[in-house]
Amino acid sequence: MALVTDDIPLVDQHCHGVLTKALGAAELSSYLTEAPEVPHHRDPFNSLLGLGVRRWCAPILDLPSLAGRDVYLRRRVELGWREVTERLLRAANVTEWLVDTGFTPPQPLTGPEVFSDGAGHEVVRIEHVAETLAAQGKFSLNGFRATLHERAANAVGLKTIVGYRSGLAVPSLPPTSTAARVAAERWLRRGGRVEEPDLLSWLVHEGARVAAELSLPLQVHAGFGDPDLRLRDVDPALLHDFVEAYPNVMIVLLHCWPYHRNAAYLAHVFPNVVVDVGLMVPFVGARAGDVLGEVLELAPFDAVVWSSDGRQLPETHYLAAALWRHHFGRLLDTWINEDVLTVADAERLAFAVGSGNAGRIYRLGGGRDE
Amino acid sequence: MALVTDDIPLVDQHCHGVLTKALGAAELSSYLTEAPEVPHHRDPFNSLLGLGVRRWCAPILDLPSLAGRDVYLRRRVELGWREVTERLLRAANVTEWLVDTGFTPPQPLTGPEVFSDGAGHEVVRIEHVAETLAAQGKFSLNGFRATLHERAANAVGLKTIVGYRSGLAVPSLPPTSTAARVAAERWLRRGGRVEEPDLLSWLVHEGARVAAELSLPLQVHAGFGDPDLRLRDVDPALLHDFVEAYPNVMIVLLHCWPYHRNAAYLAHVFPNVVVDVGLMVPFVGARAGDVLGEVLELAPFDAVVWSSDGRQLPETHYLAAALWRHHFGRLLDTWINEDVLTVADAERLAFAVGSGNAGRIYRLGGGRDE
Amino acid sequence: MALVTDDIPLVDQHCHGVLTKALGAAELSSYLTEAPEVPHHRDPFNSLLGLGVRRWCAPILDLPSLAGRDVYLRRRVELGWREVTERLLRAANVTEWLVDTGFTPPQPLTGPEVFSDGAGHEVVRIEHVAETLAAQGKFSLNGFRATLHERAANAVGLKTIVGYRSGLAVPSLPPTSTAARVAAERWLRRGGRVEEPDLLSWLVHEGARVAAELSLPLQVHAGFGDPDLRLRDVDPALLHDFVEAYPNVMIVLLHCWPYHRNAAYLAHVFPNVVVDVGLMVPFVGARAGDVLGEVLELAPFDAVVWSSDGRQLPETHYLAAALWRHHFGRLLDTWINEDVLTVADAERLAFAVGSGNAGRIYRLGGGRDE
Repeated sequence: MALVTDDIPLVDQHCHGVLTKALGAAELSSYLTEAPEVPHHRDPFNSLLGLGVRRWCAPILDLPSLAGRDVYLRRRVELGWREVTERLLRAANVTEWLVDTGFTPPQPLTGPEVFSDGAGHEVVRIEHVAETLAAQGKFSLNGFRATLHERAANAVGLKTIVGYRSGLAVPSLPPTSTAARVAAERWLRRGGRVEEPDLLSWLVHEGARVAAELSLPLQVHAGFGDPDLRLRDVDPALLHDFVEAYPNVMIVLLHCWPYHRNAAYLAHVFPNVVVDVGLMVPFVGARAGDVLGEVLELAPFDAVVWSSDGRQLPETHYLAAALWRHHFGRLLDTWINEDVLTVADAERLAFAVGSGNAGRIYRLGGGRDE
Repeated sequence: MALVTDDIPLVDQHCHGVLTKALGAAELSSYLTEAPEVPHHRDPFNSLLGLGVRRWCAPILDLPSLAGRDVYLRRRVELGWREVTERLLRAANVTEWLVDTGFTPPQPLTGPEVFSDGAGHEVVRIEHVAETLAAQGKFSLNGFRATLHERAANAVGLKTIVGYRSGLAVPSLPPTSTAARVAAERWLRRGGRVEEPDLLSWLVHEGARVAAELSLPLQVHAGFGDPDLRLRDVDPALLHDFVEAYPNVMIVLLHCWPYHRNAAYLAHVFPNVVVDVGLMVPFVGARAGDVLGEVLELAPFDAVVWSSDGRQLPETHYLAAALWRHHFGRLLDTWINEDVLTVADAERLAFAVGSGNAGRIYRLGGGRDE
Repeated sequence: MALVTDDIPLVDQHCHGVLTKALGAAELSSYLTEAPEVPHHRDPFNSLLGLGVRRWCAPILDLPSLAGRDVYLRRRVELGWREVTERLLRAANVTEWLVDTGFTPPQPLTGPEVFSDGAGHEVVRIEHVAETLAAQGKFSLNGFRATLHERAANAVGLKTIVGYRSGLAVPSLPPTSTAARVAAERWLRRGGRVEEPDLLSWLVHEGARVAAELSLPLQVHAGFGDPDLRLRDVDPALLHDFVEAYPNVMIVLLHCWPYHRNAAYLAHVFPNVVVDVGLMVPFVGARAGDVLGEVLELAPFDAVVWSSDGRQLPETHYLAAALWRHHFGRLLDTWINEDVLTVADAERLAFAVGSGNAGRIYRLGGGRDE
């Protein structure tokens, strides 16, 4: 069955690099979950995400759909990680990859340059800039904005993970300079990652100012992720006052599940809010149609963007694309059959979510909205 | 396909008046969203609500289903707003309209009298009574209840929008008279709308007492609306203690999305709570079947009522009726085919939600439950 | 249509006993809702739960599917409660029943011994142990752990209802011994059930220590129940810090609706968290497929368990089994047809949720996972 999403080249508006090494079964499995550890009684392949890999990625490696886990892992070794990576990234049919370069797990990942079939672009993570400066002994409140400007000069967007650290209830005004200074001093004495709420808030506000000055969107992690966050603190509804304070900055709410309806609400009422359906798509797998439907209940069609949040495994990049094409395509197909919209409407909507909205928001050449 | 909902005359248990003037494209579009402003990169027709208008309202104006936006807007001008209004309101097949007369946007709306095909009834908004009194220099804590009594004498219900102002965590007891007086004095000095939490709480408690004395239901705005509210503060679950404190007052939770399951829970455990499926139905459009299903998971069938929350555009009144008939009818049809219920059960349930429950709760002559 | 769930013998990992007496219409209806009272304008049969009883239980009593409520009630009297109970419990095809013996409503219920067709096991409710001790004048902070050890010696698990009393935001550390003593003294002076947050927290931490020492799972009530709880306080996401503090204790989140996605998230990121789909299944009835789908979006397949939360009426035990078999079976059938998984995958998943996961977690002989 041909779907209107089949041939749409995608803009992956939020992803990370991949690992450049061969992977054993245990290590590969460990990247198929947000759990920090995988004990023997848990097999990450026993999940909708795992089924998705077996169904969608196996054929790209010349295996039958739904090949068993062990068969899949053996074939992956046989082909070698380079070939596997190349095949999966190519199959995703992505023309532009927007790479958050501030995600730096112990095993190094490639940067935007890996995405040879498409153009790689950088998204700069605000907290990572601050932490890198501090590690070099160069962080200062006064100097931060200039450095962020510099780092963002060739980027297509900024990103904050404040939700992970102190939650999304960022006040509409930055802390006083005294409060920011006290927090910064405490942090610099302590070292490590920024965890002081006042300093995090100050960084996000500085980021929003830089985003406004450079006309860059600001991506905000919202919704689920690893257990470093508290789920209730990453409800995007908490960001209400902050997004209202920056009407000139496009705020892109990433991931959002299980609060994706709340994110859709913010996108509905604020012209500067966009809701991303990334990350959750590979995870929820066969349930993607329902979840995407929930997002569209209130989200304006002009304010929804796709991404993969792919990282470490190129499977995650491809799976997000394949699942979105299949499930969003089927949702639109059902709606066409039920006279909810016309074929032309469906094509426009598929293009907008898959590519057009992101092209316009990030002002990408290739994906520019017509 | 005939559905059990097709011919049920509806009781619209919560709506507003319509505009009595011709509308240009921009102005009409601006009423298809809860966003206070619509910038050029947002077209409210690009939404499930917009698709709903094109699909369901276009044929009422003699256009093909899913006619384009511009065609629709031209035809609307051609027919004139009087004809459009008359056709759409008639097509809704509503026998009783319960009109919240306290919604008074800059562009004046008609009152209950507009609904010539059905009986218009008034729902009195508590905060609006207080603000009108204050504007006339006549507000006093001691005199408020008498005025509310008077205003409600010919009404079928009361309504509060406390959720918009200070959230739904209204304590089970009113504030002390000192706290209420201090809040009232502050408000009267300041002028404008009531925003003092203690005064709002006091008003709602006074409203509940009047509702008890006159045996009137009390409607409570819950769930989404314009960005004047904070989404997390309008979770109907916050109203637990308040509804428990007034077992003799029927509390009707309006709208509720995305917290409609929480509202259904309150309706399940409290015999004096009723959950409304209005507002969200036109907005969520093609997703209405799923959302209504979520409400029914826990809501007693005796405790669900339909409304349009229609306002400004008669499209919104009609669309809510058409979408409810179509999607609730299809849900029931599916359930009949899957042996979840009998045809007679489905007919009873459709009548209860569309008309019977509201008729009983508001003691309406025409819609009285048998 | 044969479903992969049809013949799976179930482990009911959380239920209660049944009433041992004939029931009139009003009393029977009162057990079909979480509402503490049922006024004349509410009929609990008018709900998805009520439809479920008419559809699934009627045939077990030799009535046609969807027989009317009155016909059902008459037939129940005709057969007598013993015969009805025996038929329904047998039809559930449950091999092991895990009975929370700490639920002691005014009308006495049977204990684990009633489940003659399967093995009955005991789950010990922590708060009930404390309250029983206090009623005997024997409660002391120092002695509690020893008593709990003794009570749990032959049990398969512990359970806490702290969510009902003070919410699920249990800190990761117990209160100081002074705080616990002050709370215990206040409680013992007052009598009745434990409501002091510090004492509740202390009891749960003691329970978790005993669970660790005896390698028993700890069941935690989460999500909806009667209006004694506040819905927002039983969001399982609140339990984040607590479950993180006890990596060696399997924590089973019971019920969870409407926060079942949040529960699935915790099960995803914490290897010691399991999500139960009980209670909600009979209540949400025909909606069970969607709700179960929502749970599986993020929950590892190794971390989902079925239960009935059946109590008072054997209808609730059977209904939970029948609805789960039907709706989970149909979901899997749809997924098989859509190539989401293979038949073998579906069979494994059905066995895991229906029996295998619980068998492994509770180390039951009969249900041991292979």
